[in-house]
Parts: sequence; structure tokens; C-alpha cells
Amino acid sequence: MFKLMGVAFVLSACVLVGSSVLAADTASDAPASGTLRHVVLFKFKDTASPEDVARIVEAFRGLPGKIEQIAGFEWGTDVSPEGKAQGFTHCFLLTFKTAADRDAYLPHPAHKAFGKVVGPHVDKVCVVDYWTRD
Amino acid sequence: MFKLMGVAFVLSACVLVGSSVLAADTASDAPASGTLRHVVLFKFKDTASPEDVARIVEAFRGLPGKIEQIAGFEWGTDVSPEGKAQGFTHCFLLTFKTAADRDAYLPHPAHKAFGKVVGPHVDKVCVVDYWTRD
Repeated sequence: MFKLMGVAFVLSACVLVGSSVLAADTASDAPASGTLRHVVLFKFKDTASPEDVARIVEAFRGLPGKIEQIAGFEWGTDVSPEGKAQGFTHCFLLTFKTAADRDAYLPHPAHKAFGKVVGPHVDKVCVVDYWTRD
Repeated sequence: MFKLMGVAFVLSACVLVGSSVLAADTASDAPASGTLRHVVLFKFKDTASPEDVARIVEAFRGLPGKIEQIAGFEWGTDVSPEGKAQGFTHCFLLTFKTAADRDAYLPHPAHKAFGKVVGPHVDKVCVVDYWTRD
């Protein structure tokens, strides 16, 4: 009897701990409103030709057609007059509805293939994901 | 008479050169469609307290209420699992409808005042502006 109660207690504790971990994760990583932005900045190597850069942009632009989890896609080249771009010239802004969608995108074969196209030509990459807040 | 024609010619040439510069600037800097995104990334100093960071975020969030040229504002903290955030923890995404609006924002007194709030606490700032393309 005490043994059974002990097992029940341990199981309850596991459920409680599991719930609180889940709640904490939900609170910090996925606000009730908002979407998940995935900001990608590229600084290309000096050896990257305009054709290399154009091919990389086209390859990135092709991903939304191959990866259904990408809910939004836009890109552009830096035109800031402030001189604080840290050498980054290209910005890509992807939007995901859920963290699971982002997590499906990262190891997706089409994304991995893109990584092989871009890898040899980038000097620096910056990736920041954030849940949108007002 | 010839003198007057000469002056008229020079004036016409100035107008033509001015127009083409304007056209070139419009073509390269402001596509017919799209809006101007202003991406700001902060890496805070180790000495910045959570209260300092919270005060900076609130100050930034206050700018759209003070600067009418800001057409869109969102922000969030990095949750990327990729480890490529280069130390940046906070992203702010402002949207402007025109380059003139962005140019009015940069030297705006409220923006300058914000700069004084954030300046002492940031280790690194990255700013990239881009015209949105699909």
C-alpha cells in the first residue's frame, strides 16, 4: 500500500515538474500573440562575385516554395546611412507561426542544400529569432 | 542675348542632372513597391542590469508615440537555437514608408534622447535598413 502511494507520489511529482517546465518554456519562448521572426544577415567574402551573391539570393528566395513552414519571406540590401551595419549587406526576414515550424525549417533538406550554396561565400552570418511584441 | 541663352542652358543642364540623380536614387534606394525596414540589434554590456535593459526597451517602445514617421514597430529577444546571434540579444524592427521618413527619424530629438539612454549600456549595435522585396 505505502509502496503504491510512493509510486503515485513520484508520478504526480513528475507530472508537476513536467507541467511547470512546459509552462516556463511557453512563457519565455512563445507569447500568446505574435509570430516568430527569423532574421538572417550576410556579410559576403571579398571573393564572392556579384553572380555568386545573386545565385545565393535566388536560392534563398526559392526556399518558401520548398518549405511550407515558411509563413512569410522578404529580403533586401542595406541602405542605411548610419554606417552601423557591421559589414552586413543582405537581410532576410522569415516568419514562422510556431517554434515547431522554425524547428522543421532548420534541418529541412532544402535548407541544408541552401547552406551548401551560401557557405563558401559568406564571411559572417548573424541569425536572431524573436517573438514579435509591440 | 547669348549670355541669357547660356544661363538658360546651364540652368536646364542642372535640372536634367538633378532629375537623373533623383531618378537613379529612387531606382536604387526606393523600389516602387515595398516599405523601408530598419533593423536594430543590441548586444548589451555585462554591466547593464536587467533594469537598465528594461528601461531601454521601454524607451524604444515609446518612440512610435513621439515620432509620427514610424509606420511600424515590433521587437523581441533572441530565441534562436542556432547560436549565430553574434552576442545580440534584442532586435527592434521599425518600418518607414519613405526614405524621407527614415531621414526624419534619425535626427529627431526623441530619437537622439533615446540614444543617450541606450548609449552607455550597449556593447555592440547593428543597424541594417532595407527596402522589402519578395
